Amino acid sequence: MALWGGRFEENVAEATQEFGASLPVDRTLYKQDIAGSKAHAAMLAAQGIISADDEQAIRAGLEGIEADIDAGRFVFDINDEDIHMAIESELTRRIGEAGARLHTGRSRNDQVATDTRLAAKALARDLMEANLRLRRTIVDAARAAGDTVLPGMTHLQHAQPVRFAHHLLAYAWMFARDFDRVHAAFDAADANPLGAAALAGTSYPLDRQMTARALGFSRVIENSLDAVSDRDFLLDLEYACAVMAVHLSRLAEEIVLWSSQEFGFITLSDAFSTGSSIMPQKKNPDFAELIRGKTGRVEGDLVQLLTTLKGLPLAYNKDMQEDKEGALDAAHTLLASLGVMTGMVGTWTVNAPRMREVMHRGHLAATDVADYLAKRGMPFREAHAVVGRLVLEAEKAGVDIAELPFEAFQAASELFEPDITAALDIDGVVAARTTQGGTAPEAVAAQLALVEQGLQESADQLAALSPVVAMGQGA
Amino acid sequence: MALWGGRFEENVAEATQEFGASLPVDRTLYKQDIAGSKAHAAMLAAQGIISADDEQAIRAGLEGIEADIDAGRFVFDINDEDIHMAIESELTRRIGEAGARLHTGRSRNDQVATDTRLAAKALARDLMEANLRLRRTIVDAARAAGDTVLPGMTHLQHAQPVRFAHHLLAYAWMFARDFDRVHAAFDAADANPLGAAALAGTSYPLDRQMTARALGFSRVIENSLDAVSDRDFLLDLEYACAVMAVHLSRLAEEIVLWSSQEFGFITLSDAFSTGSSIMPQKKNPDFAELIRGKTGRVEGDLVQLLTTLKGLPLAYNKDMQEDKEGALDAAHTLLASLGVMTGMVGTWTVNAPRMREVMHRGHLAATDVADYLAKRGMPFREAHAVVGRLVLEAEKAGVDIAELPFEAFQAASELFEPDITAALDIDGVVAARTTQGGTAPEAVAAQLALVEQGLQESADQLAALSPVVAMGQGA
Amino acid sequence: MALWGGRFEENVAEATQEFGASLPVDRTLYKQDIAGSKAHAAMLAAQGIISADDEQAIRAGLEGIEADIDAGRFVFDINDEDIHMAIESELTRRIGEAGARLHTGRSRNDQVATDTRLAAKALARDLMEANLRLRRTIVDAARAAGDTVLPGMTHLQHAQPVRFAHHLLAYAWMFARDFDRVHAAFDAADANPLGAAALAGTSYPLDRQMTARALGFSRVIENSLDAVSDRDFLLDLEYACAVMAVHLSRLAEEIVLWSSQEFGFITLSDAFSTGSSIMPQKKNPDFAELIRGKTGRVEGDLVQLLTTLKGLPLAYNKDMQEDKEGALDAAHTLLASLGVMTGMVGTWTVNAPRMREVMHRGHLAATDVADYLAKRGMPFREAHAVVGRLVLEAEKAGVDIAELPFEAFQAASELFEPDITAALDIDGVVAARTTQGGTAPEAVAAQLALVEQGLQESADQLAALSPVVAMGQGA
Amino acid sequence: MALWGGRFEENVAEATQEFGASLPVDRTLYKQDIAGSKAHAAMLAAQGIISADDEQAIRAGLEGIEADIDAGRFVFDINDEDIHMAIESELTRRIGEAGARLHTGRSRNDQVATDTRLAAKALARDLMEANLRLRRTIVDAARAAGDTVLPGMTHLQHAQPVRFAHHLLAYAWMFARDFDRVHAAFDAADANPLGAAALAGTSYPLDRQMTARALGFSRVIENSLDAVSDRDFLLDLEYACAVMAVHLSRLAEEIVLWSSQEFGFITLSDAFSTGSSIMPQKKNPDFAELIRGKTGRVEGDLVQLLTTLKGLPLAYNKDMQEDKEGALDAAHTLLASLGVMTGMVGTWTVNAPRMREVMHRGHLAATDVADYLAKRGMPFREAHAVVGRLVLEAEKAGVDIAELPFEAFQAASELFEPDITAALDIDGVVAARTTQGGTAPEAVAAQLALVEQGLQESADQLAALSPVVAMGQGA
Repeated sequence: MALWGGRFEENVAEATQEFGASLPVDRTLYKQDIAGSKAHAAMLAAQGIISADDEQAIRAGLEGIEADIDAGRFVFDINDEDIHMAIESELTRRIGEAGARLHTGRSRNDQVATDTRLAAKALARDLMEANLRLRRTIVDAARAAGDTVLPGMTHLQHAQPVRFAHHLLAYAWMFARDFDRVHAAFDAADANPLGAAALAGTSYPLDRQMTARALGFSRVIENSLDAVSDRDFLLDLEYACAVMAVHLSRLAEEIVLWSSQEFGFITLSDAFSTGSSIMPQKKNPDFAELIRGKTGRVEGDLVQLLTTLKGLPLAYNKDMQEDKEGALDAAHTLLASLGVMTGMVGTWTVNAPRMREVMHRGHLAATDVADYLAKRGMPFREAHAVVGRLVLEAEKAGVDIAELPFEAFQAASELFEPDITAALDIDGVVAARTTQGGTAPEAVAAQLALVEQGLQESADQLAALSPVVAMGQGA
Repeated sequence: MALWGGRFEENVAEATQEFGASLPVDRTLYKQDIAGSKAHAAMLAAQGIISADDEQAIRAGLEGIEADIDAGRFVFDINDEDIHMAIESELTRRIGEAGARLHTGRSRNDQVATDTRLAAKALARDLMEANLRLRRTIVDAARAAGDTVLPGMTHLQHAQPVRFAHHLLAYAWMFARDFDRVHAAFDAADANPLGAAALAGTSYPLDRQMTARALGFSRVIENSLDAVSDRDFLLDLEYACAVMAVHLSRLAEEIVLWSSQEFGFITLSDAFSTGSSIMPQKKNPDFAELIRGKTGRVEGDLVQLLTTLKGLPLAYNKDMQEDKEGALDAAHTLLASLGVMTGMVGTWTVNAPRMREVMHRGHLAATDVADYLAKRGMPFREAHAVVGRLVLEAEKAGVDIAELPFEAFQAASELFEPDITAALDIDGVVAARTTQGGTAPEAVAAQLALVEQGLQESADQLAALSPVVAMGQGA
Repeated sequence: MALWGGRFEENVAEATQEFGASLPVDRTLYKQDIAGSKAHAAMLAAQGIISADDEQAIRAGLEGIEADIDAGRFVFDINDEDIHMAIESELTRRIGEAGARLHTGRSRNDQVATDTRLAAKALARDLMEANLRLRRTIVDAARAAGDTVLPGMTHLQHAQPVRFAHHLLAYAWMFARDFDRVHAAFDAADANPLGAAALAGTSYPLDRQMTARALGFSRVIENSLDAVSDRDFLLDLEYACAVMAVHLSRLAEEIVLWSSQEFGFITLSDAFSTGSSIMPQKKNPDFAELIRGKTGRVEGDLVQLLTTLKGLPLAYNKDMQEDKEGALDAAHTLLASLGVMTGMVGTWTVNAPRMREVMHRGHLAATDVADYLAKRGMPFREAHAVVGRLVLEAEKAGVDIAELPFEAFQAASELFEPDITAALDIDGVVAARTTQGGTAPEAVAAQLALVEQGLQESADQLAALSPVVAMGQGA
Repeated sequence: MALWGGRFEENVAEATQEFGASLPVDRTLYKQDIAGSKAHAAMLAAQGIISADDEQAIRAGLEGIEADIDAGRFVFDINDEDIHMAIESELTRRIGEAGARLHTGRSRNDQVATDTRLAAKALARDLMEANLRLRRTIVDAARAAGDTVLPGMTHLQHAQPVRFAHHLLAYAWMFARDFDRVHAAFDAADANPLGAAALAGTSYPLDRQMTARALGFSRVIENSLDAVSDRDFLLDLEYACAVMAVHLSRLAEEIVLWSSQEFGFITLSDAFSTGSSIMPQKKNPDFAELIRGKTGRVEGDLVQLLTTLKGLPLAYNKDMQEDKEGALDAAHTLLASLGVMTGMVGTWTVNAPRMREVMHRGHLAATDVADYLAKRGMPFREAHAVVGRLVLEAEKAGVDIAELPFEAFQAASELFEPDITAALDIDGVVAARTTQGGTAPEAVAAQLALVEQGLQESADQLAALSPVVAMGQGA
């Protein structure tokens, strides 16, 4: 029997039905669907719309089905079109007429919105946890970096020396912002659409606060049309994933660079490297590349949903069935990427001597030489030009500016005195950058304390989230 | 003289220089750049890094330049590459050596981040204001709609009758979420990067809290690398614009539909319509279409920046110069679209009789007929099938289900009694949907109160924003 | 045993391995992989690099494996990472040392390029076939439309009357261009990368022309680096799908509009409609909406690959493993959408009387009234203004311009004479548009002949394609 | 007077008008618009629809306006909404009534399609020229590279040595494919929409072949609805630009890498480098980064138009006004990027000794050592494992595999004999890759001949293009 019964005289062809079916995607939301149905039935009974016996039968029937799916022994049938019908039709097979009363005062429109919001909450929480683990690992790596200094770069050119810890903490801040974005997506999803029915509410005396409480929603959606047509919470989740993916891609790019023969700044553990089927010597940063490559995928997921939603009139349109696959894909991609990145950062070997060794190539002290002149009264723009000429001289001699003889400095400006050698020392350059957020040891130590405070706040927020219906593993 | 002076022996060709120049875009940020420079100079003087006289000369010089740009009498030269150099080189021409001291302890990297964050704050605030105006207009329209009912649709098919006010309020909720997203983007931008210098901080004793206060930033960015390489706040702004554009496109689509000859639900005012160069009868909803069409543009802006940022190593890379044009375009597009939509909604004429007239076509009472049976004990799924057959019978007779004779109902189920006529009345159907968020008059009234409370909260948030450097109009 | 053997001392963790594995996606390319290996082995033997016995054993082994996968009795193991290793390791299990010789002079880099190109060719051919079927159905529908006229629209407002056949043929032209785009993607894929090895060619005397012939490739890729790093052919395929999806979305939008209660221009067959779980009267154009909604998905697939490829240095990078899923998704989405659209167009019922009935609403003859004046000497711009005022008069009277009394015309301009009534007749308006490509009967008939000629040319091109290794169904 | 005259009683507000105006964008198409109007007027006269005198006045008037715009002395007025009205209203001011006859049998719908197609052809031709210049420069660089060898990489890890010429030629092949894509976009645009009028053709006896010939279009669009609603040719152009941008981004990435201190493979000329405002030593590959960053922009342009076109019913909708800005932006971005890249490649300095020096780090001969064993009878998979262990041994000893003593080889396999040293020589490794498309000198020479043949074919195609109306510079 088709879902929509009496009005139809002809059935949909199999290929067409398959085209219309969302079951291959939404079956993974079975726990959310069952939780929603149990809450709905309990409320119907509490409001006297169905009997207590029916409610009990429905609950027991649904729990049996959930156990079967959990155990992998439930056979899904594509003819059921979606997870809602797959479960409801099985329920009616199992418990008879009571099952046919479950859908009272409910539509697939509010039902699917409920399931999707519950899933979005579960995925957002998982992402927040994975994000927190990565940040902890980065902080550990920063702490472990100690006094290691590497050539800080702009335009991939040596710029000024920075502490490796400082460099890593930049990522801790980025990922902290990502945590907040996922948190916002969690909050966006955390509202109960159940009771909106098809689009207009119903004539049954439903208690929407009761189902909200039962399902862990913090509030009720206050407009029934909005309840069935809003997918902002999925956009928010996909967007949070997209930005996090961009951040991961930046770290991944650096890992690829750092583990190249030319840089040699880090060595990945064998457990996070792969080889070649033809070249026996290869040890490739495959996983970093894959994380970088997956940025496109998550961005594509976001584009998909934005484009799909464009120009849709209210209320529900079937186009919106295309909402879940991309969101699930984005979240799962990020969960996996975060996990692998955490493992990679946690097991790499840092080649501090190599970082130090290359620092004689890029005239990293040049800015401080100009500042030396400026502090002695020369306008900075002039000092910049003087030092530029010294760098050119050094380049032509094939040496670093720090290797030029004092005579060269003297010839360039009479403001130079023998204490210029102090300004040319890499560790001195680092130590001088004591401004808030700078790379001097004490500034980095202060920053580290703030980052750890942020970790604690995130952990507290995670603990304070409203209840979640975890994703099932059986479907 | 080239900006980077001594180290270079050859100049960049003109076409290449034009390719590299950001001046055509960032000149619109002149007020932000000047505000940043004034704050920097004041701090340098307060910290004893430059003299009070120099600071005074710099401040006066900058104010003179600002007045000239405001008045449209400043001649920009593409050779200056960007707004920073355009202003600084003019300053030095005007005040001499003091101008050359302004850039002490600063880099274009933290300078451009400062300007861009100030601009993002200004644009976000403007967007919040425009958003609030549209929401107020929608609320007014909802209030004006009174008891008007239209055929609520799913899949663009008549589904159930809904109050027009209820339909409009769905948009009020959507745009309220957009306000929050823009607010989050404002907060993301609201942090001071100045003092990060090129990437590592500086050896000058800068007071970053002081410049933060002077510029209206609520906090200081705590990692210098992050300060120069973070563009999340622009992504956040573009994303907020993209979702708002999607919401506008949905309303625009409905306006196009409603003003078609086939629907005839509303008539746009002449002031928000256009005609045809060839067809004298045409009155087209051009502006609604244009708003809908611009969704692609804003989505494209978001894609641009996400793609540009992918895979960039720390810290600053020139790719990031491509950040501003898309963000400015997205914000300006939304500001204009919001304004036009506000005017369009505020001046349309609602054809309530037409909405009422078409309601006999879509069997809008069918759900309530099924509920009638279900409330009398028939499981809902069975009731659904019974009513489906009644609809089919009505369709074949070319009438609405409400027009079927009572005998037809009786023949379909003996549960039907003469009071079924009440369930078939459109106003009765609407009145029955009293659940929270439903379309019954009292539910809509309750909802309206909540929406107005939201408006007030948004207005309060707008008033509480940190200070903003407004965009200039002279460049 | 890990694929890359001796150089590694530690294994990759399971979750990481799963992250890196492409097997879930590329297993569907098993026929392409086996065809490639057979061609490679035959060539190795012909060149004396392996023995004839080894080649025979390899061929028999591979055919046995293919039969097992076809029959669904091959057990894939995620530890094999990809389809190449899954097959090769099973081959070696089955035939021993000869299997270990198969990979001589080959790398996974050229192997995966070969598989992917073969799959792209197969999918492109399938798309061309499905495209042709839709175009034939559209032409049939146009032919069946006979003299049916509907209100041609711009801005969704009545503009000028057009033959329904003419309207449908516009889509025939769009989809004809899509055929050509897919054809170009086929040609892009139709080149042999095998023999490029890892990136530089090999020291074995491979005969790349021989493997090209065996695999049905029309040419050999002439640069080994390009052979392993080029994915343009997938972009071309995804782009062709994206434009075709946009075209389908436009037709789908019209189907949704036309089957609404307000338009009522067509009725979809029950076989291509669905109902509602709560509203018994609903008959929804779900499949048209789903086709429209999937536009976002295919656009997202294209964005994914463009973004993933951005900024990758030569030659192969692991990022590129993300290439196949989107391309397969785009092609499969389009294949299904084309099939469903073909069924929908082929079974709809056209309500010609309704199309005719609504034509009195939009002053569809107004342009011809202006042309009437222009042909009598009034400059067109003036004529446009005169008719505009007549339309306004008609609007205020609640009638169509064709229903105005002759006196009204006379009052507007003395150029009007009683023969103006002919210019007001809808069929006359249509019949007058005899320009090439116009909507007059003879112009449409001429156009139809050209469209059918195009169908024949496409059929000939389809027949002339180079050989294809069809996608397998067993994996 | 508003464009659409009589039917309207109220004017559009200024801000709204500005929102609807396309003049800031389409004014750059003034030459196309004037050419279209001249061709239309000449045809109207030839068909006896307007007088020869009117045609002469129109032509002279238009040529006067064109000269004024060319000279930069035409004042555009935003109230004219678009370039069509800007020119036509000025024409009528200048020549009176004859100007008001120009729009006979024409609509802005076919007019804008004509202008846009002419512009697309002009831009495509310019892109083909710029593409050809870059390819010639790459071929020159390849020729100049002589015997230079660099470490060929996969996963940014040393893989096998390749000739630098071979590496560069990979880009020549990529850009050759781009030429063909732009060529296809040219062909897509090369069809005449003029005469389609608003959407349905007209009742005037227009000669569309005549205007096609006059404007250089190779064919006439055969369906009037398609003529006004098709924007595929812009998508094709933007797509061609997007793929070309991806290719440029890959080369740009390599330039950034190669000019880093760590790689040191090339030195950019000062004319294609920039410095830092704070760091006097910096010489940054800004232009390569900017080219890379602009990939996002062009991808965003493509996304914009695909999204905008999604779901639009036939025929013309105002959404489509958003078509031109992105296409112009994409084309101009690519033109500039191609020009800068050509200059950059043409002036870089290649540091061949450095490329050679780093080649002892990555065990680049490892594949050939495995092949050595395989050629002596060991199955390749076993040989791979043996060499992998040798590499590990070398790594632990801190040397390249080529630096291991012969004893190490002997211990690993008795198949090794003293001639293994030949297989370890970098130049020998390169010389051995003689397969078609391989990196051996003779293979690269053969390839170079094919690339040059392709250049000649492209040049011939460029010369054979249908006539183009070049973009004007005055607007």
